[in-house]
Amino acid sequence: MYKQVEPSDYHVLHPRPVYLIVSRSREGRLNVMSASWVSPVSDEPFLVALSMWTGSLTYQYIKETGEFTINIPGEEHVDVVYKAGSLSGREVDKLSLLGLKTVNSARIGTPGLAGMLGFLECKVTKEVAVSDDTSLIIAEVLAIHVKEDAYSKFGWNIAKGGRVLMHLGGRGFTVPYRLILAEKSR
Amino acid sequence: MYKQVEPSDYHVLHPRPVYLIVSRSREGRLNVMSASWVSPVSDEPFLVALSMWTGSLTYQYIKETGEFTINIPGEEHVDVVYKAGSLSGREVDKLSLLGLKTVNSARIGTPGLAGMLGFLECKVTKEVAVSDDTSLIIAEVLAIHVKEDAYSKFGWNIAKGGRVLMHLGGRGFTVPYRLILAEKSR
Repeated sequence: MYKQVEPSDYHVLHPRPVYLIVSRSREGRLNVMSASWVSPVSDEPFLVALSMWTGSLTYQYIKETGEFTINIPGEEHVDVVYKAGSLSGREVDKLSLLGLKTVNSARIGTPGLAGMLGFLECKVTKEVAVSDDTSLIIAEVLAIHVKEDAYSKFGWNIAKGGRVLMHLGGRGFTVPYRLILAEKSR
Repeated sequence: MYKQVEPSDYHVLHPRPVYLIVSRSREGRLNVMSASWVSPVSDEPFLVALSMWTGSLTYQYIKETGEFTINIPGEEHVDVVYKAGSLSGREVDKLSLLGLKTVNSARIGTPGLAGMLGFLECKVTKEVAVSDDTSLIIAEVLAIHVKEDAYSKFGWNIAKGGRVLMHLGGRGFTVPYRLILAEKSR
């Protein structure tokens, strides 16, 4: 019933939410990249972990200012997300090329993106090397902004537009379908 | 257009895939818990990070044997997943109570679960404390088993039953809908 695939085939842990990470250099330049290897790791305080290739411009900017925003795209942003993951900020101004507008953050100097489902303001607390060229950036979430209506106290409202974009692999993406409620535990 | 919510509202990073983590004590007892704060963190080697409450029985078992499996449920397992996350293995034998059957692993002594979409065999390489009572367990994936047909070289095939269960919050879950292809980059 099961077959084995290569033990390096990380797509088995996809689809998973894909985010646009905005970072800022010491001089104030902005960059954006897409990332889905992001997870909450603690609830009090709310900490997130972000896996980063240490050769990336985003990694360099995050090291310079210790800040970034996690921006949450919906289905309409699928081409922007794919391009943000295929281009390098060393060669082009990705925000400008992709037509992305920023909105001010409340607690940090790095902005969020306009028109997303929401964004999180993050401040780095720790870095953990996990391989020769990969680090886990651990950061505290200082503020969260969400689109009116699409978010309730139970989280994203799928029926009201809260359909977080998910990455499968390559050019393949998906979105959540409908709410499924588990039976109450006795 | 955006409203602010509490900076501790981690549901903003959900829905995300939810897994059944099987662990084994030194004496060979098995436990299962549900977890969605899991992410790939490196591709060569394929490493995963798992956020764990250090008071949990799963954490204790993982510390004892340095092994666990990540099992990938589908929609039909929603009640099992919810219950595995609401009960403690210190009070009940959760595998037995939930009617879960195991299948042997190829590379480690801790089994996977039968009837899932697939499972990963993991061996701990590092632990990182992230708060007073929370650790990130970093582990290498040694083998991957997937359900025939539901998985292709592009990952889970949504149209052929590869619908990974996602957790929104509380009793709320969802599944991916359909494949969305981004435009090719020029």
